[in-house]
Amino acid sequence: MTKAELISIGDEILLGSTINTNASWLGEKLTEIGIKVWQVTTISDSREHILNALREAENRADLIVITGGLGPTKDDITKDTLCEYFNTELVKDEEVLTRIEQYFKNRDRGMLESNIRQAFLPKGCTVIPNLHGTASGMWFEKNKKVFVSIPGVPYEMKAITENHLLRMFTSHFKTDVIVNKMVMTQGIGESFLAELISDWEDKLRNDGFGLAYLPNPGVVKLRISKSGDNRMEIENQIDSRIADLKKIVPEYIYAEEEKSIQAAIHEVLSTKSVTLATAESCTGGYLAHLITQNPGSSVYFKGAVVAYSNDIKISQLGVNPELIENHGAVSREVVEAMAVGVCSRLGADYGLATSGISGPDGGSEEKPVGTVWIAVATPQGVSSSLFHMGHHRGRNIEKSAKAALDMLRKSIV
Amino acid sequence: MTKAELISIGDEILLGSTINTNASWLGEKLTEIGIKVWQVTTISDSREHILNALREAENRADLIVITGGLGPTKDDITKDTLCEYFNTELVKDEEVLTRIEQYFKNRDRGMLESNIRQAFLPKGCTVIPNLHGTASGMWFEKNKKVFVSIPGVPYEMKAITENHLLRMFTSHFKTDVIVNKMVMTQGIGESFLAELISDWEDKLRNDGFGLAYLPNPGVVKLRISKSGDNRMEIENQIDSRIADLKKIVPEYIYAEEEKSIQAAIHEVLSTKSVTLATAESCTGGYLAHLITQNPGSSVYFKGAVVAYSNDIKISQLGVNPELIENHGAVSREVVEAMAVGVCSRLGADYGLATSGISGPDGGSEEKPVGTVWIAVATPQGVSSSLFHMGHHRGRNIEKSAKAALDMLRKSIV
Repeated sequence: MTKAELISIGDEILLGSTINTNASWLGEKLTEIGIKVWQVTTISDSREHILNALREAENRADLIVITGGLGPTKDDITKDTLCEYFNTELVKDEEVLTRIEQYFKNRDRGMLESNIRQAFLPKGCTVIPNLHGTASGMWFEKNKKVFVSIPGVPYEMKAITENHLLRMFTSHFKTDVIVNKMVMTQGIGESFLAELISDWEDKLRNDGFGLAYLPNPGVVKLRISKSGDNRMEIENQIDSRIADLKKIVPEYIYAEEEKSIQAAIHEVLSTKSVTLATAESCTGGYLAHLITQNPGSSVYFKGAVVAYSNDIKISQLGVNPELIENHGAVSREVVEAMAVGVCSRLGADYGLATSGISGPDGGSEEKPVGTVWIAVATPQGVSSSLFHMGHHRGRNIEKSAKAALDMLRKSIV
Repeated sequence: MTKAELISIGDEILLGSTINTNASWLGEKLTEIGIKVWQVTTISDSREHILNALREAENRADLIVITGGLGPTKDDITKDTLCEYFNTELVKDEEVLTRIEQYFKNRDRGMLESNIRQAFLPKGCTVIPNLHGTASGMWFEKNKKVFVSIPGVPYEMKAITENHLLRMFTSHFKTDVIVNKMVMTQGIGESFLAELISDWEDKLRNDGFGLAYLPNPGVVKLRISKSGDNRMEIENQIDSRIADLKKIVPEYIYAEEEKSIQAAIHEVLSTKSVTLATAESCTGGYLAHLITQNPGSSVYFKGAVVAYSNDIKISQLGVNPELIENHGAVSREVVEAMAVGVCSRLGADYGLATSGISGPDGGSEEKPVGTVWIAVATPQGVSSSLFHMGHHRGRNIEKSAKAALDMLRKSIV
């Protein structure tokens, strides 16, 4: 399998002021065409550091993709260093010069000396045109390894890759096909899920598939992958393994592609003529926020009452004060009354309610921080569940909201 | 200057499904304490790859920080490999075992075999406690180099770094004093701010200070830094520059330390005996969510009405239907009625209301996507402002909520 190493040049990435999204974008694209990204190396734009990174990468990978270090204010070091590494020299490329001149003419701006220097490129490299900027891409071959240097400005990098590089890579390296499929699970931690599906996983791995657990608060993504030469065949094989998986843990799987739980709910609700409202205590509006992240959610989402204080639960949701007095605000009785109340007050078919102790304060022996009651009211009735989240306020809010959405999903489908 | 290399372990980063935000967060923190991040290396979780990365990093850096590769389903390879590299073996750490047992007890969940294995740690390493998860951090020293291995789950990684590592690094490496101070601004874009303060910035740089613009949606952080040997003296110098800055752009500065705008509001409201409620259309609950992120916000936050549909604006907030008919839901008249209405319905002293078109649909020639009205009702009266955000739904919601909080801040102080 073809191995790639990405070299990202840029002090701003090392200092942390820029996140290296170029590497993840390229990682995804290369994976899709069956090239394995083996390492990502981020370095400063200094001659010595670039030379060293190139030397090491050449020993590890078949393809080295360098991003960044090009551009009118800083490309001298990178290009000079590439010349040194490939034992060549900069020569003026008339075609590139014409393109740069045209670039400035189109924008009605004057050209600087530094822009003219951008038309000087290493002799012997294949120039890859950049239609969105003035720094060209470069393709080198040495000892049967391919080295590509492209600018780090994200939209220039993406355009050069999509318009030229991906095709050049697949034809140069006759790559294998890799198929990745995602299965989204909710409501179970990574280690418990792994325990439940361990036999399935062992068999999967023995048969040459890959499996990755990708946990997020409240959600664990499973990525199943396999490489080979026939895409259709591999897709069918993976689908059949997913079908087996669904028999083992049906209740935890909410989607068979990469998707948030709110997006999964959105798809269901957009196609049904039903409406939804939320009554939120411990989630404090976050549940409504997740739902309204979806463009078009106004079709089914009526609104929310964030009832942070008990008097709002009584006045705005019609919760009987005796319930709060007898059972406490964090109780089955109150959360069910909230869910039913928000449906009737806001005129919604489905109501989701949360009441819990997010922390760090407010816990007691009987109801420690992390205790959360969630109710879902439907046209058929109301039901509720008790959860024990953790100690971290932000995560408790996030996990409670996702658990509520999952209860809604199960009660609608 | 102490040089650091960050090693990020994880196939999901190489495949591009996870963006390496850990590296940028660590890059920022290490820079702040005067350690230079010299290289970031991302590798797969395989023995051979980890060993090779450790060997190379040891030649380049004084400090090697490894993130990821730990966790109940995958820490075996990483820990075994660390043992091999440091020529040691795994031994049971009773203290860690007790902490893990407590962790599961608190959550009312059973422990698995894989969790017990997490209490086995390399003999001779200094264990760094992880209060938010079951994978401990490890500190090794070899040939005068420091190696640290910590889990890759972002909030565990951040807590371990902030609570333990940064202090351990500064005392071990006797770094130069670098003083960083943050100035938080709201309501002005990066390039406009740069234009307004360019003379101040030139003088600052000429006098040997550093300045970084760190933009987020709705907020631009300015980081002013200087290094030297006398912390107190440098702090005074920076404070005097900040005092100059405040004369130039007083209206945009909401804090002189790293702080979200909701945290700044929280400090003010917690000390005053006043209450707050929100009435949200386009922000969809996000404003309430930002406010309730603050532990203890229940002292002043009564709740919210998310009035996503017009009939909720009428029934739950008492907006006169004629106002909606005559001016549209996105108008000064309606948003002011919402702010006043939520105060009276929820019994709050201050009310914040938003009504706008977040997009991507719903815009018109007169009111394009990004048009947002925000009102603040106070005991003295109600006022409102019109904003033109952008085209991106998520950013519009975020910017609207922050603009609302900023209006509240100005009307309370």
